[in-house]
Amino acid sequence: MESDWIRGFALRLGAPPPRVLRGIGDDAACLQVPEGQNLLWTTDSQREGVHFRWDWMSPEDVGYRLFIANLSDILAKGGVPYAALSAIGVPAGFPEADLMSFYEGLAQVSHRFDCPVVGGDIARSPDGFNAVLSLLGTASPGRFPGREGLSPGDSLFLVGTPGLARAGYLACRDCLFSNSLLSPAIEAFRRPRTYPWMADFVREEKALSAAMDTSDGLGQAVFEMAFQSGVSVLLDPPPGWLAHLEPFAGLLGQDPFRLAWQGGEDYDLLLGLRGDGEAGLGGLPVNLVSRIERCLEGTPARIVRIGSVIAGKTGDQQEKGAVLIKKPDGSVEPLERVGFDHTRN
Amino acid sequence: MESDWIRGFALRLGAPPPRVLRGIGDDAACLQVPEGQNLLWTTDSQREGVHFRWDWMSPEDVGYRLFIANLSDILAKGGVPYAALSAIGVPAGFPEADLMSFYEGLAQVSHRFDCPVVGGDIARSPDGFNAVLSLLGTASPGRFPGREGLSPGDSLFLVGTPGLARAGYLACRDCLFSNSLLSPAIEAFRRPRTYPWMADFVREEKALSAAMDTSDGLGQAVFEMAFQSGVSVLLDPPPGWLAHLEPFAGLLGQDPFRLAWQGGEDYDLLLGLRGDGEAGLGGLPVNLVSRIERCLEGTPARIVRIGSVIAGKTGDQQEKGAVLIKKPDGSVEPLERVGFDHTRN
Repeated sequence: MESDWIRGFALRLGAPPPRVLRGIGDDAACLQVPEGQNLLWTTDSQREGVHFRWDWMSPEDVGYRLFIANLSDILAKGGVPYAALSAIGVPAGFPEADLMSFYEGLAQVSHRFDCPVVGGDIARSPDGFNAVLSLLGTASPGRFPGREGLSPGDSLFLVGTPGLARAGYLACRDCLFSNSLLSPAIEAFRRPRTYPWMADFVREEKALSAAMDTSDGLGQAVFEMAFQSGVSVLLDPPPGWLAHLEPFAGLLGQDPFRLAWQGGEDYDLLLGLRGDGEAGLGGLPVNLVSRIERCLEGTPARIVRIGSVIAGKTGDQQEKGAVLIKKPDGSVEPLERVGFDHTRN
Repeated sequence: MESDWIRGFALRLGAPPPRVLRGIGDDAACLQVPEGQNLLWTTDSQREGVHFRWDWMSPEDVGYRLFIANLSDILAKGGVPYAALSAIGVPAGFPEADLMSFYEGLAQVSHRFDCPVVGGDIARSPDGFNAVLSLLGTASPGRFPGREGLSPGDSLFLVGTPGLARAGYLACRDCLFSNSLLSPAIEAFRRPRTYPWMADFVREEKALSAAMDTSDGLGQAVFEMAFQSGVSVLLDPPPGWLAHLEPFAGLLGQDPFRLAWQGGEDYDLLLGLRGDGEAGLGGLPVNLVSRIERCLEGTPARIVRIGSVIAGKTGDQQEKGAVLIKKPDGSVEPLERVGFDHTRN
């Protein structure tokens, strides 16, 4: 029964922090406003048969992944998580233990990020399980690294393990669970990484011109950022930037660049950084990069400069929003906009 | 394509108010905080095959109804709508015109209540259409009419047209669309009423002890409020309080009390009011009632005193949270907790 499930979940979550004046159990939650801050707000979903299948991950993984998918958006904009609401559709006969396991996944992220779940909706789903989370964050006024912030001369950086979660998705799809060599990729797919240092970084580093997560694929993110900024982008990643993918790409018979470019399962960060006087060597923002490198120590994630922003009109590319790539032989080719779209499948 | 749909929706919505620093189009929305206020926050869903069927209502009705379902929760707690986020699951091959019609329904409520939709998520649904809205409101600190606020001596009032939307639901279920006598009920089901004066009422009227909407059925609401308050309730509604249901109940072969008590389609308000010195006649809060009556003028909704709060232990009812009803012959009987549960269907 709905109210018993919710009481069980509330018990698992424990007492919320004082900013939660009313949590689970009424028509609406009531929160103190974070004085002197802005609110960031996002929503994201996990749907059985679209984002996951039950033979790919546990209910706990789905809850964890749902929360991280939302956190990733808030962190990409420099937000500090404030509170969350869930809205889930539960099929008839769905085991109560699985529902509690899903909530356990939410609770793990909630506790880790001090982000209380303050309420939600449970309804019957006529078909598969689906879950929506809505997440509020707080952010310093005047600092919002939007998708439209790129200018010519900016460098584009990627933070994360590009393509790794996509490799994990393909391993799940092809039922390659018994191959333990693929485990790191499968784990990256089930339990995406996030970058909680972004809140401080966004607040303090004025050379950050643009940021977004790559949850619709790196390719989509680069095109979207170029389009919204009204610039073109030249990709020129260093050799070996996808070395981490080689073993997985080999086992899966996939091209590493394709895994990284089209994958819509990674929650990596795409950052635009302005080279300025303070930033050191050759106009590149090396201090910022080393700051991020320190944040990433001890994790598999890395920061890589993948390209730079060029003026809108380049050669035959008359249109702003174009994305070009420099080939190993030095030639430059335009890329087509492709990538992950959760409305197709 | 997802981004085209979202751009179309953003165009239909028009420019957001200044409190929206970033609306649709980035990883997260950015809002100013409402200084000196609390935040109210709720989420609710509309799911094909559970809350509606396409032969019952248009996509525009579904969008409208989804927004009202959320508004109802915020208004019941005295909130003023601040901003909304949507998260929808769209089946393969879903007509784009229908999606735009759904958004049109959202836009109508958004404009009417000055409540911008500031972003959202669109994903593929492997099955039916489903939509979740998340709604923020603002409210005065120190005033939250919770479900637990009832005390012995309080009166229970119902604001609305109890059972009317349930009659409309049954008319839809039984395909009685050609009977124009049922139109008012069907319309109440498709386009629920809300009570925007509640924000002022909650802020100003300290004799309001408890409030909630009846979206899970009047019966569920009365039991839940009694349970959370730790009191028992004696229902004693006046004769004729369900006169508005008589024609529909007759056509549908339904018992009016059952329509009103079990119906989970109404968004009526259940209010607890304290009789106090200022409130006039016989300890009953007549001034508050006449204030609400003035607010309801020109609408089919009415306010009816349906009962009162009695001490926890009453006769054989040892348990707090009991609900009793006075029969026409003066005898008192306990009611069983039944009602609408969106996790069953």
